[in-house]
Amino acid sequence: MQQLGSQTWQFTTRPVILGSSAVVGPEEGEGPLAADFDFIYDTLKMGEKTWEKAERTLFEKASQLALYNAGIDEKQLEFFVGGDLMNQIISSSFAARKLGVPYLGVFGACSTSMESLAIASMIVDSGGSKYVLAGTSSHNCTVEKQFRYPTEYGSQKPPTAQYTVTGSGCAVIGKNDGSGKGVQVVSATIGRVMDLDITDPFNMGTAMAPAAADTITAHFRDTTLSPGYYDLIITGDLASVGLPIAKALLAKEGIPMEQTKFDDCGLLIYDLDKQKYVIAGGSGCGCSAVVTYGHILKRMKKGELKRVLIVATGALLSPLSYQQGESIPCVAHAVALEIGGEGV
Amino acid sequence: MQQLGSQTWQFTTRPVILGSSAVVGPEEGEGPLAADFDFIYDTLKMGEKTWEKAERTLFEKASQLALYNAGIDEKQLEFFVGGDLMNQIISSSFAARKLGVPYLGVFGACSTSMESLAIASMIVDSGGSKYVLAGTSSHNCTVEKQFRYPTEYGSQKPPTAQYTVTGSGCAVIGKNDGSGKGVQVVSATIGRVMDLDITDPFNMGTAMAPAAADTITAHFRDTTLSPGYYDLIITGDLASVGLPIAKALLAKEGIPMEQTKFDDCGLLIYDLDKQKYVIAGGSGCGCSAVVTYGHILKRMKKGELKRVLIVATGALLSPLSYQQGESIPCVAHAVALEIGGEGV
Repeated sequence: MQQLGSQTWQFTTRPVILGSSAVVGPEEGEGPLAADFDFIYDTLKMGEKTWEKAERTLFEKASQLALYNAGIDEKQLEFFVGGDLMNQIISSSFAARKLGVPYLGVFGACSTSMESLAIASMIVDSGGSKYVLAGTSSHNCTVEKQFRYPTEYGSQKPPTAQYTVTGSGCAVIGKNDGSGKGVQVVSATIGRVMDLDITDPFNMGTAMAPAAADTITAHFRDTTLSPGYYDLIITGDLASVGLPIAKALLAKEGIPMEQTKFDDCGLLIYDLDKQKYVIAGGSGCGCSAVVTYGHILKRMKKGELKRVLIVATGALLSPLSYQQGESIPCVAHAVALEIGGEGV
Repeated sequence: MQQLGSQTWQFTTRPVILGSSAVVGPEEGEGPLAADFDFIYDTLKMGEKTWEKAERTLFEKASQLALYNAGIDEKQLEFFVGGDLMNQIISSSFAARKLGVPYLGVFGACSTSMESLAIASMIVDSGGSKYVLAGTSSHNCTVEKQFRYPTEYGSQKPPTAQYTVTGSGCAVIGKNDGSGKGVQVVSATIGRVMDLDITDPFNMGTAMAPAAADTITAHFRDTTLSPGYYDLIITGDLASVGLPIAKALLAKEGIPMEQTKFDDCGLLIYDLDKQKYVIAGGSGCGCSAVVTYGHILKRMKKGELKRVLIVATGALLSPLSYQQGESIPCVAHAVALEIGGEGV
């Protein structure tokens, strides 16, 4: 791999996503991307006694399906890079226990989807493994309970609030065989922590927008590409409040985002007009993971998209840090995916 | 880098630890390794209003000192790989905000020390950066409060309990200039999640011992070395209860650990006879970090140790997972350090 500028890694061998999975809950199954998901649970409990056990079941299901879709079995899998929003990333660690392979736990809040993909791709690119699983999850009821209020409490939310996606997305990254087949992981831009002094955990889009803009700016500075190179640039979960802020910040930086389609996973996953309860849109580790590993990869395989930059954003708060009056530090990690390019 | 067997990475260029730091609290400052630490706080509050802010101050101090000891300034630093035991690894994320460099958050409980060192070394080895900071922290009062009871509550503990180290250890990893100077990161063995069905959060040593034994066994299987190759093999924090269990498990596996010195960071950091309050010994992310980056590196530089295998162990529980009756999944990551070998 090669370092471009200060924040970007170009993966010399262009590792390939051999297979992926997107498993969601009932509300995501009523959204416009339903047909792109591999499995839709019809209840939020997923047959388990607690929300936390349900999230783990979701993650385990997604990891199994990713292996199946990649055409490899558990014995061939060599490493697992995963994380989630739960305290001590228990959903991921329990999924790792079931997988039984060497495990690297990671945490970047909702940016975990691209952090895990970047690290998994680095491992494959640098010769550390043939098959690495990257994945993450979130569950509406575990996350709302942990970070804000239990959903059963029925508290009102302000119009800036987002709705945590119930979903897990996983991908198996493998060596590029040089055939030009498959979606290739081309580069990753690792984000810096940005903090705009937002202290309201119901206003994540505003808090995360500067991190997204900073990482996108860094990506184009480091790679010397311009936005028009990509068919789609998509942020993790800025939703309806954060995306316009990111657009304004990028315009201020002079990045010509009008050259391409610039969208947000949190806006795609739900029908905001019909599913009013999602308020500003989707959020959570699972949001960018299931939109990427379900929807976007399918569009790439169909030839509708050739080059996509996924910019997953994360708010690195804890309930305790904001109760102690701290602002919300945020980060965004970008990964560039391409189809049809040449591997080594 | 090269994959050895199924779990081990050999770093082809042998990245170098350019500088490191070990910053601790007053209790560690009364222990036998006091002279090896860069800075000792004389109060647990460290001039802050909350324990969590104190831990962050500790982490920030250690990161600054590591840069100073490595002879580089903040502007030269390119990446930070860090994590800690707090929910959503806030100590690390707030330290990252202060550093202002691209940040990868990681979590492996107390194995975070070697997880972050392994990932940082991979980044440097594979050409992704010239200077990467790896680090972790723990604070007795934040950890006890979060995982068990606030220390002010004064609850009694069983004889298997360990004492969370107040400390932060950081290291700057850089390219090997081929001079043969400095401590080199030679290989890393990434652990699998092991679970012996222990459900008692006051008995971490027993829960983590199988993970340590499994990773040590994997390291010797993958590298085809034997324990006698190392001058010291040291586990993260199995303490007085866990270390004998790990020894028994390794004897059962036929690994001749008697060829070398086999010790534990949780036993070295305190004087168990004088500091009775530590019960079975030290624990926490900071334990293996400050013992490695303070004590062991100093001994290596003095020529007392040439080859050391650090096996950091982590218990991947959350308070919520054990309250829901779950057992404690554990993991251990090993990193091999050598002095005087040839770099590329």
